[in-house]
Amino acid sequence: MSGTMPLELMNDRFIKACRCESVDSTPVWLMRQAGRYLPEYMKTRVKAGSFLELAKNPSYASEVTLQPLDRYDLDAAILFSDILTIPDAMGLGLSFEQGEGPRFEFPLQTEKRIQDLRVADMDQLRYVFDAVAQIRKDLVQNSKQRVPLIGFSGSPWTLACYMIEGGGSKEFQQTKTLLYSRPDLMKHILSINIQSVTEYLKLQIDAGAQAVMLFDTWGGLLSYSDYLKYSLDPMKEVIRRLHEDRHLKQNIPILLFSKGGGTWLKEMAKSGANVIGLDWTQSLSQAREQLTSQSICLQGNLDPQILLGDQSIIKIKVAELFNELALTKEIKQDLSPLDGHIFNLGHGISQFTPPENVEILISAIRAESTRHRLQS
Amino acid sequence: MSGTMPLELMNDRFIKACRCESVDSTPVWLMRQAGRYLPEYMKTRVKAGSFLELAKNPSYASEVTLQPLDRYDLDAAILFSDILTIPDAMGLGLSFEQGEGPRFEFPLQTEKRIQDLRVADMDQLRYVFDAVAQIRKDLVQNSKQRVPLIGFSGSPWTLACYMIEGGGSKEFQQTKTLLYSRPDLMKHILSINIQSVTEYLKLQIDAGAQAVMLFDTWGGLLSYSDYLKYSLDPMKEVIRRLHEDRHLKQNIPILLFSKGGGTWLKEMAKSGANVIGLDWTQSLSQAREQLTSQSICLQGNLDPQILLGDQSIIKIKVAELFNELALTKEIKQDLSPLDGHIFNLGHGISQFTPPENVEILISAIRAESTRHRLQS
Repeated sequence: MSGTMPLELMNDRFIKACRCESVDSTPVWLMRQAGRYLPEYMKTRVKAGSFLELAKNPSYASEVTLQPLDRYDLDAAILFSDILTIPDAMGLGLSFEQGEGPRFEFPLQTEKRIQDLRVADMDQLRYVFDAVAQIRKDLVQNSKQRVPLIGFSGSPWTLACYMIEGGGSKEFQQTKTLLYSRPDLMKHILSINIQSVTEYLKLQIDAGAQAVMLFDTWGGLLSYSDYLKYSLDPMKEVIRRLHEDRHLKQNIPILLFSKGGGTWLKEMAKSGANVIGLDWTQSLSQAREQLTSQSICLQGNLDPQILLGDQSIIKIKVAELFNELALTKEIKQDLSPLDGHIFNLGHGISQFTPPENVEILISAIRAESTRHRLQS
Repeated sequence: MSGTMPLELMNDRFIKACRCESVDSTPVWLMRQAGRYLPEYMKTRVKAGSFLELAKNPSYASEVTLQPLDRYDLDAAILFSDILTIPDAMGLGLSFEQGEGPRFEFPLQTEKRIQDLRVADMDQLRYVFDAVAQIRKDLVQNSKQRVPLIGFSGSPWTLACYMIEGGGSKEFQQTKTLLYSRPDLMKHILSINIQSVTEYLKLQIDAGAQAVMLFDTWGGLLSYSDYLKYSLDPMKEVIRRLHEDRHLKQNIPILLFSKGGGTWLKEMAKSGANVIGLDWTQSLSQAREQLTSQSICLQGNLDPQILLGDQSIIKIKVAELFNELALTKEIKQDLSPLDGHIFNLGHGISQFTPPENVEILISAIRAESTRHRLQS
């Protein structure tokens, strides 16, 4: 397996930034960077037949993972997959209807189904680990740069939301109703999800993932104290188990992103994660101030919808972000105020993004990063 | 008009709390307290024909405004209306399709439509002012308690979101695209909305509203700096104009609520509003800490979905909220730590709420309020 491949990274900016080490240029990658806004992705998807057939085929998954790297000057690759692979492997029957988003055939809508829930069968997820191994191989062969590969999982809470609701939702009413009427059943689901997510990430690391990210899309729906208990605590438990294991002795950075999580930054910073992702409603400089004296890397946080706008405004917004960061205090001596930051969007890139705007974005990031680093 | 009626309030807890004065019991009202979860509301709606016919008929609007007061021990009434009355009066053609939410026939989707936009014709909104006057009369005649009446408007930004998008949306993509490509046109719309909202609230006050609230449902979609510029600044301008005018010399409290606004509490507290509404993701005690030394009342913030859960959990959550508040520092000498707080939900009550759970909620609030006030 490629995890043991003696591959030297040609570009380790991303990994260094995760560890709050000095870098020559701010590393950049974009959530959902491989996806529908790219015409070459749409071609592969047609070839594969459907989104799920694409995601479940390691060769196609690798192909689309590398597409944005061939096109843009990015510092990391992220496994092309879906956050709902785990509940699918638990037998909940995942499908994607045209324009409808994900659907589960057997959502957790009875106590019996909840009691019968078992940790996901990792054999059913072999296609994911095979994709990770394949991407690592292909990154060496085909890509312009040897960048690190990020593996990922949905957070235990976010998976529970979809598993209970049976799909996406505005307010996750059934999930909240279960939480507020049978917290015992919610804890049972979360405990199964914690075990599943931990195993899943371990096997991604074994297969070659060089960093892992927890996507907590729906933690921000919870009340202040319930987020800590039902979203953050399970993520902390996953991180604790990964740390306990040999896996993190390989020094694999962990990234944590709760959409709408600005309220809980201080608590998130104590989770054991190396990197905290910020959505676009947060101020990077205020987040840095709140987390002063902590060696924690921040990732984010441009509004993805800026990429639907005018190119001159994209450049202005990037310049503003760097100006803001440049005025913050360094997290450690001998670092630039720009260190400990990974550029990303505040959420996944929109499928309606003109690909040329991503080019403009990345050029602007490179230019601002250089300008500020020369000045300091 | 009833604004000049020499009506003594029999219950002034709400108004006193808005001004951070001491009260005998924590005032409580619920966003969307008149609405679909109440069977008596559904009866009036059937009688009226449709939601819009109900809202546009002062007699029906008053009837449903008073329904929750007849049923529950509440400390304020809120005008039954919709936040989209202003764009409707601008000629955008509001309708509500069954289960679909609001739709505008003529959304602001061309530059010409935006340039042609005019301040809402207040004559077209007479039904709202008539409803306010009617409710004030009926509160004296029919309601168990003479509680104050809150008037309201959507915020300039939130109105713009619907006016551009043509209805509700998950991400308001067209609105964001306009913001990020033609900020000049966005500013034009906001300037028209500022004038309209100011006039609208003045006339509600003239008709008898004893407090006014700005509902900013979508400010929380904006990036950190764009919220300040496009959502908060226009609300500040409305408040400034109301203050400048004779209207606020009558000492009418202003309430401001941005859903997802936790990031900007300090800035909101400097807006000139008397009360800041918090959604359920915020911690009341942390908000109080952030706003220490400011005489600002906080309103909120129980997750409305708790009302879909178990009654024992409703009681626990209310107790937790009061315990948390009781541990905060008093905002002024001789006040209880519970003063300067209005109990509300963190968002509108769900249409699926069992009415008996609201009874449980309010009893729990009264009990906790009394218990803590006796102890202090």
